[in-house]
Amino acid sequence: MKDLEALVHELGKLPSIGEKTALRLALHILRQPEEYGKRIAAALNDTIGRVHFCDTCQNLATASLCSICNNPSRDASLVCVVEDIADLQAIERSNSFNGRYHVLHGALSPIDGIGPNELKIGELKKRLETQDPEEQVHEIILATNSNVNGDATAVYLSQIIRAYPIKLTKLASGIPVGGHLEFTDQQTLAQAINRRLEF
Amino acid sequence: MKDLEALVHELGKLPSIGEKTALRLALHILRQPEEYGKRIAAALNDTIGRVHFCDTCQNLATASLCSICNNPSRDASLVCVVEDIADLQAIERSNSFNGRYHVLHGALSPIDGIGPNELKIGELKKRLETQDPEEQVHEIILATNSNVNGDATAVYLSQIIRAYPIKLTKLASGIPVGGHLEFTDQQTLAQAINRRLEF
Repeated sequence: MKDLEALVHELGKLPSIGEKTALRLALHILRQPEEYGKRIAAALNDTIGRVHFCDTCQNLATASLCSICNNPSRDASLVCVVEDIADLQAIERSNSFNGRYHVLHGALSPIDGIGPNELKIGELKKRLETQDPEEQVHEIILATNSNVNGDATAVYLSQIIRAYPIKLTKLASGIPVGGHLEFTDQQTLAQAINRRLEF
Repeated sequence: MKDLEALVHELGKLPSIGEKTALRLALHILRQPEEYGKRIAAALNDTIGRVHFCDTCQNLATASLCSICNNPSRDASLVCVVEDIADLQAIERSNSFNGRYHVLHGALSPIDGIGPNELKIGELKKRLETQDPEEQVHEIILATNSNVNGDATAVYLSQIIRAYPIKLTKLASGIPVGGHLEFTDQQTLAQAINRRLEF
């Protein structure tokens, strides 16, 4: 109990890990060979300080710019705004986007106390204000998630970005590839019908 | 992605933390001030090696014996067998038990590949075989959880312990204090009726 308190306390501060889960994790770690927990500690110490967020787009980076912002073959005139790095990684895996990103690190959620200042929105404004004339942003894709918070964030951003001569787009919505109509929710079906394309 | 791989990999080995949760935790840690993650690493390094399991009862200990086994005022003739340290802590908080413990560190669960060798059952046998004549165990309370795995573990242990001249008991079951009959499940109600007490 007291012997474990510090570890349980630290683990319990992680998101969605309460005191009981923290105790369970701590006990699990103690039941393993010593090097198991030592490796976690080493990975933490090694990552912190070395990995941080890209000065431009807030993606993971080990230098001041991330590998995408640093890549001259990526189109700097096209910026995709995503909520999280996991979203960025999903888009990268699709191999269908050659622009750059801006990671908000969350979505507006008044109920959780997350307002514009908690997100990397100031960094996006600054990025648009201090554009390199040779790398002007011409189009921004608002690729926030398709839910209440994501939609609210997109609307909020659109109001800011309209001050600039930039084309605003969003991801297409419709039936997922491989999805069954039977199991598709009403709203998605409605959007898929309303925005039907020529065959 | 690659920059975070080691940390995500290590965090992902923790129980009930998959790859996506591990990524979310790692990103959360990176978003905090540096000392946040450093403190987790320090707590891990400090706890591992210092805290281990009691030689006798498998509770948490910083010496060879835990604070309960080391306490001469605790009744060594009465041993309560529990699945986990969290269960031990719950009983301690009830201030109603002055005996000692044996922590199994789990329950039998063939479907999860947890057999007798994965639990601290060998340690319990050894403890009964090498008893100090002045600290003979007279009664063992089988306080495993009241579910399929816990019950199976209790039955398995009872077969082992019957080889010794030791009284075997189990916790009473019935309506929880403050519990509403309306919301009590059928089995609990049935047990509470069948084992009703004089008023």
